Amino acid sequence: MLQSKLFTKTKKDAPSDETSKNAILLYRAGFIHKELAGVYSWLPLGLMVVNKIKEIISQEMEAIGSSEIIMSTIQNKEIWEKSGRWDDEKVDVWFKSKLKNGNEVGFGWSHEEPITEMAKSFVSSYKDLPIIVHQFQNKLRNEVRAKAGVMRCREFVMKDMYSYFKNEEELNNFYNNCIDAYMKVYRRIGLGDMTYVTSASGGVFTDKFSHEFQTVCEAGEDNIYIHKIQNLAMNEEIFNEETLNKMNLKKEDFELKKAAEVGNIFNFGTKKSEEMDMYFTDNDGIKKPVYLGSYGIGVTRLVGVIVEALSDEKGIVWPESVSPFSLHLISLAKNENGESYKKAKDVYEKLKSQHVEVLFDDRLEKSAGEKFGDSDLIGIPMRVIISEKSLAAGGVEIKERKSQEKNGEIISMDQFLHMYLKDC
Amino acid sequence: MLQSKLFTKTKKDAPSDETSKNAILLYRAGFIHKELAGVYSWLPLGLMVVNKIKEIISQEMEAIGSSEIIMSTIQNKEIWEKSGRWDDEKVDVWFKSKLKNGNEVGFGWSHEEPITEMAKSFVSSYKDLPIIVHQFQNKLRNEVRAKAGVMRCREFVMKDMYSYFKNEEELNNFYNNCIDAYMKVYRRIGLGDMTYVTSASGGVFTDKFSHEFQTVCEAGEDNIYIHKIQNLAMNEEIFNEETLNKMNLKKEDFELKKAAEVGNIFNFGTKKSEEMDMYFTDNDGIKKPVYLGSYGIGVTRLVGVIVEALSDEKGIVWPESVSPFSLHLISLAKNENGESYKKAKDVYEKLKSQHVEVLFDDRLEKSAGEKFGDSDLIGIPMRVIISEKSLAAGGVEIKERKSQEKNGEIISMDQFLHMYLKDC
Repeated sequence: MLQSKLFTKTKKDAPSDETSKNAILLYRAGFIHKELAGVYSWLPLGLMVVNKIKEIISQEMEAIGSSEIIMSTIQNKEIWEKSGRWDDEKVDVWFKSKLKNGNEVGFGWSHEEPITEMAKSFVSSYKDLPIIVHQFQNKLRNEVRAKAGVMRCREFVMKDMYSYFKNEEELNNFYNNCIDAYMKVYRRIGLGDMTYVTSASGGVFTDKFSHEFQTVCEAGEDNIYIHKIQNLAMNEEIFNEETLNKMNLKKEDFELKKAAEVGNIFNFGTKKSEEMDMYFTDNDGIKKPVYLGSYGIGVTRLVGVIVEALSDEKGIVWPESVSPFSLHLISLAKNENGESYKKAKDVYEKLKSQHVEVLFDDRLEKSAGEKFGDSDLIGIPMRVIISEKSLAAGGVEIKERKSQEKNGEIISMDQFLHMYLKDC
Repeated sequence: MLQSKLFTKTKKDAPSDETSKNAILLYRAGFIHKELAGVYSWLPLGLMVVNKIKEIISQEMEAIGSSEIIMSTIQNKEIWEKSGRWDDEKVDVWFKSKLKNGNEVGFGWSHEEPITEMAKSFVSSYKDLPIIVHQFQNKLRNEVRAKAGVMRCREFVMKDMYSYFKNEEELNNFYNNCIDAYMKVYRRIGLGDMTYVTSASGGVFTDKFSHEFQTVCEAGEDNIYIHKIQNLAMNEEIFNEETLNKMNLKKEDFELKKAAEVGNIFNFGTKKSEEMDMYFTDNDGIKKPVYLGSYGIGVTRLVGVIVEALSDEKGIVWPESVSPFSLHLISLAKNENGESYKKAKDVYEKLKSQHVEVLFDDRLEKSAGEKFGDSDLIGIPMRVIISEKSLAAGGVEIKERKSQEKNGEIISMDQFLHMYLKDC
């Protein structure tokens, strides 16, 4: 893409009520637009990141057998009354409104009830199970406070997955596969090293239990205890003598860190199905409740966590897998006639023809300083500069965004093209 | 995909309050689930169709220079008050609710105001124009009646595009490009022959004007007059002596048909920008209002129109471009050990390895009649049957869904594989 055609421009300042690092950087770099506290729109660069994360999650969920669907935002009161969760005393984040005929409707803050109701309509026998479905849903939650940028919003994209099995063993197997799939997602989006699965309540030997995925990050609202040697961590709530003794671990081997929850999964056993009246006839002819699990990842929240965890004082640092572009090609030419602009344009066309995702800063009126500043702020992982100076020095200047060096490395044009093009 | 793994099953009946052909067929075939009147969820097959239509629209909008974004569902009252459209007297389809602090919020039934507000924040000079953006947005509208299945919903996916130009000429050029792009979309999704662009009000020589795209279809709620010889049509409202005289056309050359609106585009001139206070400084140093256009296609509505326009008494007939799968491979085997099942499985694996989108009906317990009935209902454009009978007759039986013949044609396995596989 030509940067001259990108309508978003970087901004010096974020709105004054914006205090979180993620929202400030995402806003300044032109990834998001603020509508209200906790409500953001996603501009071209931001939507590209969201879509890349979605695609990675989608691949991993499909790999463990899930099918994608999309439920409605408008919620049917009757369905939520079955579980008692229509009640504002029980769920305090509902947005509700009324149809013209006076009937109340809600707006989806979660979808367990309607998805279970939908799944029920396809299940009578054990032959109809399992059902595993996920969606990327725009959740609406009437939160009291929304101060953490895109990490805690009144409107956000969540991948929620639901599984329906005929027995505990199958559910437990899937639940464990899901833990692995989630960890693959975090590794693929660049958060693997700093993300832990923690047991949130109960243990794997009770009927109902849940796990959280926590990414170490100063902006996180949770505290976790990380083992200094083994690759494990515990939530604050269960970090006590009893748990430590059970696991044969020593308190002093742990250190306390701030962390942000990036996923949570729930094994409900048959509790939810009993509430929602979801039964099946097993091969022994006996009617039994379905075993239910639910599995969430906050997609837009992840964008915030990546920015919080990986950015530096100059701006965002995207992992390549989720970056809007793989490469930021910068020309320092002031007019289109010089050798350096022509070379840059030519490289851009070559890269594009081979589907390399490249943002080409072709803006003639901007200074080198402005371009480098924008590039640091936007955070594409690799930068390549083509200028009269780089050409005189023997080629192009390349620099990784995460490098703290002032200057990049000069490599020949051929070397550079070999890095990105297949057939040259 | 293995049909045995598809959790949706075809159903004999739709909910009794469902009267539209599109909803009945989509429901029975397992494409949608009904949440409330005018509110549907999209199940795996349905979401595949929606995504294919989105992808086609996306390509055509990007080809004319638009960038994709996604705005929020939650709407800021203050922004809508600027244009006067917060008022329920002016806009009677708002869903509204309240934040915990008592502030009112709305839920997006349209996004002209917030997108214009967002665009404003990036525009001061003529150098910042044009801006062209589109989104695939879940619109929420508090409609009094919702009886036309997915053709008129309280919640639906719309592609809405907005353009901001510095002068009338540029806007008019883009507006005309958009007409061409829309017609390309309708052709690509199989509605080209029956879709007309009609002038909805005014003419191209007034400051503000609009056009509609109308698909001939019995379930449509509009009437259009179609010229019997020339490829043109007129909306009922402007079909009068005056227009006919201006265009030098004769009344008797037209016939009246029912049609469904599948797109509409608006050229607002500077009206909207003046309302929303969106100005720029031109290269002559003078402050001027921006020229605005908006362009909508109802994505989920299109699914309904395709079903209404192309289905037959046996079920849905998808055009290949939007069909969830290109091919419905049906095995009639009753166990996995026979030759015919093994051959079918082998063909399925070959097709899959070459990324042919194939649904394989591998269900052993279903009768041939049930399988053909399901296949007709689901509507994949090409069916191939592998059975002992077809093998004995020399290969596989292929049949187009739209064919009204009872039986298909027997072709050799090699011939069939040549049709779908590149390297064999």
